[in-house]
Amino acid sequence: MDPILFYGVPEGCSFGAIVALEWSGRPYRLCRIQMPGEVSSPAYKRLNPLGETPTLMTADGATFSQTQAILQHIAATSGDPRMGARPGQPGFDRLNEMLAFLTTTFFSSFSPLWQTVEGASEADKAVLIPNGRRKVRKAHAQLEALLAGRDCMVGDGPTLAEAYFMGISRWNDFHQAIDPAEFPAVQALRARMEKDPAVRFALAIEHEEPAESAGGFRGHVGLEAVLEGQRAPA
Amino acid sequence: MDPILFYGVPEGCSFGAIVALEWSGRPYRLCRIQMPGEVSSPAYKRLNPLGETPTLMTADGATFSQTQAILQHIAATSGDPRMGARPGQPGFDRLNEMLAFLTTTFFSSFSPLWQTVEGASEADKAVLIPNGRRKVRKAHAQLEALLAGRDCMVGDGPTLAEAYFMGISRWNDFHQAIDPAEFPAVQALRARMEKDPAVRFALAIEHEEPAESAGGFRGHVGLEAVLEGQRAPA
Repeated sequence: MDPILFYGVPEGCSFGAIVALEWSGRPYRLCRIQMPGEVSSPAYKRLNPLGETPTLMTADGATFSQTQAILQHIAATSGDPRMGARPGQPGFDRLNEMLAFLTTTFFSSFSPLWQTVEGASEADKAVLIPNGRRKVRKAHAQLEALLAGRDCMVGDGPTLAEAYFMGISRWNDFHQAIDPAEFPAVQALRARMEKDPAVRFALAIEHEEPAESAGGFRGHVGLEAVLEGQRAPA
Repeated sequence: MDPILFYGVPEGCSFGAIVALEWSGRPYRLCRIQMPGEVSSPAYKRLNPLGETPTLMTADGATFSQTQAILQHIAATSGDPRMGARPGQPGFDRLNEMLAFLTTTFFSSFSPLWQTVEGASEADKAVLIPNGRRKVRKAHAQLEALLAGRDCMVGDGPTLAEAYFMGISRWNDFHQAIDPAEFPAVQALRARMEKDPAVRFALAIEHEEPAESAGGFRGHVGLEAVLEGQRAPA
């Protein structure tokens, strides 16, 4: 069977995995998971006990989670140069460094601000909002420093690191924590990546707009259908 | 030259990289970086512009950062089975999933509590402490769920995931956010790993106690000596 990516909406960090699947050129399906709500349902937790997105079901029916692990799985099964370097090749350490920075510091800098829209009290918000803005600013300053003198995060072209970055950086559009013009290298990279067909495809999928795959997208599948199709573990 | 790991003390998340270097069996040196203070100095920032530990200087003099990238570099240059699976092998996805969970959710759950010891106001602490305790509790509950029915995080033996876990889990000894007995699988794994010679070595190194390497440790080197030895970039 085709691998299935269970991606969260709206504004999911699964975004980068959709981009990577498009780049991979290999066949895949998508399963849309609403956040909050469906992501914490007993049905979805049969696939992901933590109740988080994304989850990947591989061609042999195994499931696992965590964006970085999913990106590395997609990369290991594709020869597209945008997947980045393999162990021992130039760029391998830099790709892992950038992916780690983005999935830890950059991702989690938005955590206090997300908490403010998840039912925080006014007293909590008074601490969370300045704390979150400070973290987002610091993370952007660090990313700007990591991009100094470079057009791309790794070597000469966009990689998995840019795919993941695109899913997270747009969170600032919602939270308005920083003015993007303050971080010109970050802003330029984002503007360039917004023209990538796979990035436009992922955005259209999230927004349920007409989406044209330049890769191996074979359509959506429903969560219930996936669960009904599952066999008992051997 | 031997690779050099710049590790932060006290209580650094570099801990897992020291364990991995011991397991690798290959020669390496260590450079001790005090936090806060030295880690933010202009001298150290020549090696790591973000002013964070750990940093690895490879055998050819290149430097990069981020624990997960360093762990993967060490793994790529060692055949020790504790390094975990390679792309395409069983356990590859699970290892990446566990490393990603530990470096994101588990690591960052302690972030609000660390902020309380970095000069937060009493009003901030009143929000940060319950927030942090809730996050640490949730992360431990998730790790307990991920360990269900397993002795180790991946397959039959400890891997890089356990090495990294040992550096972070002891942060609860300081913050006392949860009672370890509430999470028996996590507690049992930690107790078992505390007997590992490489874990004992890393702890002794951090505490400047007599440390016996079962691996390729070739001694400490000073930051100034490293910088003096650096050639201008080609």
